[in-house]
Amino acid sequence: MTDFRQQALDYHEFPTPGKISIELTKPAATSKDLALAYSPGVAEPVRAIAENPDDVYRYTAKGNMVAVISNGTAILGLGNLGPLASKPVMEGKALLFKRFAGLDSIDIEVKHRTTQDFINTVANIADTFGGINLEDIKAPECFEIEQALIERCNVPVFHDDQHGTAIVTAAGLLNALEIREKDLSTARIVCMGAGAAAIACMELLIKCGAQRENIYMLDSKGVIHTRRDDLNQYKQLFANNTDKRTLQQVITGADVFIGVSGPDLLGADDLALMADNPVVFACSNPDPEIRPELAKATRSDVIIATGRSDYPNQVNNVLCFPFIFRGALDVRASAINDEMKLAAVDAIRQLAKEPVSAEVIQAAGADSLEFGPDYIIPKPIDPRLCSRVARAVAMAAVESGVARIELPANYMQDA
Amino acid sequence: MTDFRQQALDYHEFPTPGKISIELTKPAATSKDLALAYSPGVAEPVRAIAENPDDVYRYTAKGNMVAVISNGTAILGLGNLGPLASKPVMEGKALLFKRFAGLDSIDIEVKHRTTQDFINTVANIADTFGGINLEDIKAPECFEIEQALIERCNVPVFHDDQHGTAIVTAAGLLNALEIREKDLSTARIVCMGAGAAAIACMELLIKCGAQRENIYMLDSKGVIHTRRDDLNQYKQLFANNTDKRTLQQVITGADVFIGVSGPDLLGADDLALMADNPVVFACSNPDPEIRPELAKATRSDVIIATGRSDYPNQVNNVLCFPFIFRGALDVRASAINDEMKLAAVDAIRQLAKEPVSAEVIQAAGADSLEFGPDYIIPKPIDPRLCSRVARAVAMAAVESGVARIELPANYMQDA
Repeated sequence: MTDFRQQALDYHEFPTPGKISIELTKPAATSKDLALAYSPGVAEPVRAIAENPDDVYRYTAKGNMVAVISNGTAILGLGNLGPLASKPVMEGKALLFKRFAGLDSIDIEVKHRTTQDFINTVANIADTFGGINLEDIKAPECFEIEQALIERCNVPVFHDDQHGTAIVTAAGLLNALEIREKDLSTARIVCMGAGAAAIACMELLIKCGAQRENIYMLDSKGVIHTRRDDLNQYKQLFANNTDKRTLQQVITGADVFIGVSGPDLLGADDLALMADNPVVFACSNPDPEIRPELAKATRSDVIIATGRSDYPNQVNNVLCFPFIFRGALDVRASAINDEMKLAAVDAIRQLAKEPVSAEVIQAAGADSLEFGPDYIIPKPIDPRLCSRVARAVAMAAVESGVARIELPANYMQDA
Repeated sequence: MTDFRQQALDYHEFPTPGKISIELTKPAATSKDLALAYSPGVAEPVRAIAENPDDVYRYTAKGNMVAVISNGTAILGLGNLGPLASKPVMEGKALLFKRFAGLDSIDIEVKHRTTQDFINTVANIADTFGGINLEDIKAPECFEIEQALIERCNVPVFHDDQHGTAIVTAAGLLNALEIREKDLSTARIVCMGAGAAAIACMELLIKCGAQRENIYMLDSKGVIHTRRDDLNQYKQLFANNTDKRTLQQVITGADVFIGVSGPDLLGADDLALMADNPVVFACSNPDPEIRPELAKATRSDVIIATGRSDYPNQVNNVLCFPFIFRGALDVRASAINDEMKLAAVDAIRQLAKEPVSAEVIQAAGADSLEFGPDYIIPKPIDPRLCSRVARAVAMAAVESGVARIELPANYMQDA
């Protein structure tokens, strides 16, 4: 076993198993403390909430608590290993929520017997939390699950593998096209992969102005086109009325390649066929669809992003999910709607255009970070992300009518 | 509103809403930290757990995490106010788990649509946790729910309102009878109340030696007897083949009164009818079935316990539930069985017979605490409770074959 793999196991095991614990936010030392925290004092907030359900935000931890929920059917790139094996990832997500946005977050692993049963289970426990982050649930079930839960839950439900990926991808791609003076509405786009992330990315790009007929999506059987009869309802929406059948055919002259598939699936010869100034998002992790070194050696006009932290332009969901929940919870949004997602895209885009502090540049291990081909999206460690994205999302929630309280005065103003 | 009620609301609201938060137990500052905590490092514990499910205890927080789960159908003495209103109580229970036994605990409030649906929901999420504490679920559904969950879950399931109450009651009652040189096997017992706590108390007393035919249980319609046709299956087990119909009839000559019903239901004239040296557990909270002042004024030979902290002999579940879970989780018990419950009864009984430190006496606001009519059960603040009860429970789990790991060396030895 490599050093890093052993370090990862040790990190999880010592000094105590796992990564999160529960702490008390109120005194609990004396008998008086306990009389306030539990019987008889606790009867007061109980009565208050029974009378006015919104008081649950006033007297309990609900308003700052996000559940990270999975059935373990699509864990990272490892596949369907079941709910128990997904637990380290879900705890990791909880760690990221706390680290980046100060949100309390707990993982819940759910036995998946049927899709309806899974939906029912999550809906039944949803009121416990301020919001629900679905994670590592395989397609196509994830679409039905998210939609049903959005309808049934009073709190925002967000499948990060879909929308977090889509938001960060859209932000980076729009910036890359801006740098290359191309327009999303006329860009020809190849999307390799047809799972949760791929479909959500393409749907969001369409909301940002891309034309559906300019999108060529490929699954393991090749181009998704209108004469295939093996497509689920989600892939059918991307069935292109085309005679093209191969990657080589669709990549020829394409402006954009989005890979959410697997390692090394975009060859140098494929890249060579793309239009001038191509944009490549090779997001398969840890091994991208094409290595940045190979891409840049093949053609100098490419802008390339990956999912890796050791190359420029990392497409990392952590740029989005902690802050979209932070903003949503802070105005008690009933949902995370398109307006909020697009506001997050804009906020992330804009931040990449602003000067970066020396601390962030140093922590990123970079010589400089200036808006351009090698810096199209902010670094996860940029401390402005939380205030910028959360504020944009919260404002969008208020403006689109899903916020249940006003935006707090001076909410997330820059220091 | 009284000062205390306002203090209770303020305690819950300020400086942040609620009583618990999530904290990180591992470093999460640097990029290296995050690479270990999340992608790519987290893949290692995922693979390990997929291969060996028990590794979930090695690499995640599961083994120290208790879920406090309610549907809000019987909140304290306030009744069925629904899951949302139960949240402060459940968070309070989580606070007690942490404060007394160092267990991480999170509340889950579950929408109850049908009993089967509730069972299903809890069973589906159970593997997330090391154990499940059911709370404030009304009878008779609570019996079916607990039984079904014990059968379906791989982790211990314990309905504290039943068994926590029963264990502490049994410990106190056995000590009181010992002081009075009476024998439980011949004691005549009146149990006022026929809900979850009442039935569990009587079942446990029978396991401790009480005779079922010596028990007279009363519900709101009076004595439960064999000629009633309005009894659910749980009450039927206590249908006494008797001609007695009233409290006055059954209390005459009784040795023991256990009240888990409502305020002031035991009159001084009823108490006067009991046998010599009667034992009265007036556990209705906050207002007992009979006030200790009145009981003692009525007859000087009574031993009385209540649910209140401002009188001697407080019957408080916190003497049991944190430690029975501590012991069960520390040996990964698959269940909390009768052997473990009886071990907890014994451990609590024994501790009351040992000298108490000056600190505990002072904190309890007492002049002295010596085994006798006014000190039959330990004080919740006694720091020896955790080691004594947890050790007894863990040993019983090992001996009865439900432990999945050995008792750790030097487990919970006295300092």
